[in-house]
Amino acid sequence: MSRLVDLNSDLGESFGAYTIGMDEEVIKLVSSANVACGFHASDPVVMKKTVEAAVASGIGIGAHPGFPDLMGFGRRNMVISPKEAYAYVTYQLGALSAFCKQAGATIQHVKPHGALYHMAGKDYELAKGICQAIYDFDPEIILLGLSGSQMINAGCDIGLKCANEFFADRAYEDDGSLRARSKEGSMITDENIAIERIIKVLKTGTVTTYSGNELSLKIDSVCVHGDNVHALEFVRIIRERLTAEGITIAPLKEVLK
Amino acid sequence: MSRLVDLNSDLGESFGAYTIGMDEEVIKLVSSANVACGFHASDPVVMKKTVEAAVASGIGIGAHPGFPDLMGFGRRNMVISPKEAYAYVTYQLGALSAFCKQAGATIQHVKPHGALYHMAGKDYELAKGICQAIYDFDPEIILLGLSGSQMINAGCDIGLKCANEFFADRAYEDDGSLRARSKEGSMITDENIAIERIIKVLKTGTVTTYSGNELSLKIDSVCVHGDNVHALEFVRIIRERLTAEGITIAPLKEVLK
Amino acid sequence: MSRLVDLNSDLGESFGAYTIGMDEEVIKLVSSANVACGFHASDPVVMKKTVEAAVASGIGIGAHPGFPDLMGFGRRNMVISPKEAYAYVTYQLGALSAFCKQAGATIQHVKPHGALYHMAGKDYELAKGICQAIYDFDPEIILLGLSGSQMINAGCDIGLKCANEFFADRAYEDDGSLRARSKEGSMITDENIAIERIIKVLKTGTVTTYSGNELSLKIDSVCVHGDNVHALEFVRIIRERLTAEGITIAPLKEVLK
Amino acid sequence: MSRLVDLNSDLGESFGAYTIGMDEEVIKLVSSANVACGFHASDPVVMKKTVEAAVASGIGIGAHPGFPDLMGFGRRNMVISPKEAYAYVTYQLGALSAFCKQAGATIQHVKPHGALYHMAGKDYELAKGICQAIYDFDPEIILLGLSGSQMINAGCDIGLKCANEFFADRAYEDDGSLRARSKEGSMITDENIAIERIIKVLKTGTVTTYSGNELSLKIDSVCVHGDNVHALEFVRIIRERLTAEGITIAPLKEVLK
Repeated sequence: MSRLVDLNSDLGESFGAYTIGMDEEVIKLVSSANVACGFHASDPVVMKKTVEAAVASGIGIGAHPGFPDLMGFGRRNMVISPKEAYAYVTYQLGALSAFCKQAGATIQHVKPHGALYHMAGKDYELAKGICQAIYDFDPEIILLGLSGSQMINAGCDIGLKCANEFFADRAYEDDGSLRARSKEGSMITDENIAIERIIKVLKTGTVTTYSGNELSLKIDSVCVHGDNVHALEFVRIIRERLTAEGITIAPLKEVLK
Repeated sequence: MSRLVDLNSDLGESFGAYTIGMDEEVIKLVSSANVACGFHASDPVVMKKTVEAAVASGIGIGAHPGFPDLMGFGRRNMVISPKEAYAYVTYQLGALSAFCKQAGATIQHVKPHGALYHMAGKDYELAKGICQAIYDFDPEIILLGLSGSQMINAGCDIGLKCANEFFADRAYEDDGSLRARSKEGSMITDENIAIERIIKVLKTGTVTTYSGNELSLKIDSVCVHGDNVHALEFVRIIRERLTAEGITIAPLKEVLK
Repeated sequence: MSRLVDLNSDLGESFGAYTIGMDEEVIKLVSSANVACGFHASDPVVMKKTVEAAVASGIGIGAHPGFPDLMGFGRRNMVISPKEAYAYVTYQLGALSAFCKQAGATIQHVKPHGALYHMAGKDYELAKGICQAIYDFDPEIILLGLSGSQMINAGCDIGLKCANEFFADRAYEDDGSLRARSKEGSMITDENIAIERIIKVLKTGTVTTYSGNELSLKIDSVCVHGDNVHALEFVRIIRERLTAEGITIAPLKEVLK
Repeated sequence: MSRLVDLNSDLGESFGAYTIGMDEEVIKLVSSANVACGFHASDPVVMKKTVEAAVASGIGIGAHPGFPDLMGFGRRNMVISPKEAYAYVTYQLGALSAFCKQAGATIQHVKPHGALYHMAGKDYELAKGICQAIYDFDPEIILLGLSGSQMINAGCDIGLKCANEFFADRAYEDDGSLRARSKEGSMITDENIAIERIIKVLKTGTVTTYSGNELSLKIDSVCVHGDNVHALEFVRIIRERLTAEGITIAPLKEVLK
């Protein structure tokens, strides 16, 4: 049974005059932040502010590199080569690490964003481009990806420390993949059920799949959202229930120790 | 008399399908490269290739941060705050340093690009934003700026190592500033005269100003260009003449030792 | 005494996943919309939606071209040439007009955005670049600018119909310019005073300047904002007060008839 | 037998300080230009210049809309919705048409660029988004697409005039699709053979497929390139050979009459 789990959330997604996310609130509730790096969201001024806030709150800082598609918020599939993925991740990782260095912090993890996360989860060569960039920059950085994905496979093969992410609001197929959003029953909309799924996977190491089977799943981090008041309230409830079950919420690097 | 001088040139200014500069040729002729960082020019793939080429040739690598104005190649004045300048320089410096780290190299210097260089040369507060970003990232990085400019003043005040750049093809005013391009006689078009000016300033520490006075000038680096065949030929002649005068061409960090 | 006045507001400033402005509410309260064109704000999907909403509500549609500076929301001064201004305005005007054409509407006016508005208000050559682009595209389009500015001067010289904009929340200098924001007393923060200023200028054709003099001012349109609930409430009050004074709110093209 | 054929080439792909293409030369050799619109290439200043040059030379002007991916030159697949495609094409078409209007010209045709061309060639819904945008803007504009593609199907269904493009340097499969570049024999590298294929398809209305069958193909336009001296020379030879065969080169609108 896991006694430790990380709660991660996307942070620093504002851009110029545009604001997204209730960063000041969510930063108090999570143990790790995935900080946007200026490709799919954010800008240098936002990144500086976000890193400083994350450092002040003591949470783990992760780079959240995405596709160069601000207009699509990095959510649209783009066909890039592994070589391009390597360079794009390096660029964004380096940019964020500079703000960390200035603030006396280091990068804890990398979690690719949106369409890059999902494409690399299914494409080993693309994932290798991403993971090799991380490893060549700093082999101590943790890769955060979907449990059982090609991204985790590539990260392990390259020698990165890999952390498995759990999606409480998504149904799983028997092979460990997320049930496609286009299919019936892909989303777990009942929040109580979602929380029970987190607790179950942490206590028993298994999740009930869409087809009703029990799937073994090792998880290190749960993805939560801070976009609106309701989402924040949900994170608060998750924290309470986990604590009540004797589970400690801690940054990824402590979970992986 | 200076026995050492650096020759610096802008490198890695290509972008996607677009090519600028004869990088493969100029890289063999200079001792330091100012590498574009993706704001006014370049992209991550170009940066990786440029850093690897610079490392292979053994020249000093500098970050060449510019305004976020790809359409204007960073040559148009933009009014940004010192706080924005701090963040923009940090971002670009970090991005480039990641490619350096992967290639086993470090950033030798920072030379702001184009309009940012010229605006910061006259605006102490803007220059301080730039210099503080560099210092907070790594106080060992050298600032390369126009001799006598506000940028050099700010860099020295903050505690950076400062290197003075000389423009062989530009006339100087009595106060050490470059004669404005809009004024008559601002450009030195005769290449022989330009070279003689370099040799004179290195041997005697003075330059003849537009008005005919002798101005004391300490210089560490000369800016050269590699845009076309003629420019490359000019760099070759400079190298020959300097060598013939017993002056050694060396990367900035060796010149400043 | 003016019996007609236009209320204009910036609309369609959202971008991709980012939202700015309460467009659905403000669109019901104004008579003309300045629609962002994808340079300082907006994207093609937002533009289509905004034009369709403006057409449905029957208000006048204006292009709101800005600097190519999404990160700075077009609020930062950029030094571009009149030739560049001509091309940038043409591009944005054409893009917006295509959505209008598809929706069976035409462009009523052009109001440059942010820093472009203010720079062109003081720079006749820059303003001429903008106005010539509008005239060459369609000489029937109205230019909306600050009363007494160089932009209005250039527009009139070129042969455009020019509409004078009034800022209710800004103090005026004796020469008709807006009192600089950096100076004391530049902003009219008391909303009742702001409204009385609108009514006075419409009824008497004069405004009391910062120094206490009476300045003659012909005005055609008042700039209002729809960023937040408070701003919307203020627009509602303006509408009520104007109506109570027998002043009709109408699109710019009707005001200029 | 066709007595008329159009030669089309991509034009106006330069951007800011970056130059691509020998526009001044190629413009004299083709009958229609596909003008980049600022998404995958070009900027407003380049567009103005390109339209003016095309008008001066009397060739047909087409919009060449692409993905918003300057870094990838629009050559990388991006998954956008038909609704996004509609808006992106409208935006770019409108922008280009403004420069045409100023120059006293009109848009003759639209040819989507790069990855958008190829994706829409295989995806009827995406193609419909593109074609509906063109039709709603101006139903007289000609769609230029790959003969037999889903784009041509969608254009015809919507009511656009459709022109079929022929690729002289690519092998065709029996179903009329281009043989995938990844497969052996996809490229026709022998220029004499390429030219003979053009003449044959124009004279007989058939092309020999990769598998050796004769495929009926109606063609209206041949795509040629002007990137380098060699490509230009090839276009000159094509012109000579076509003329020698009694085939007239004319803009698309005359070919379709």
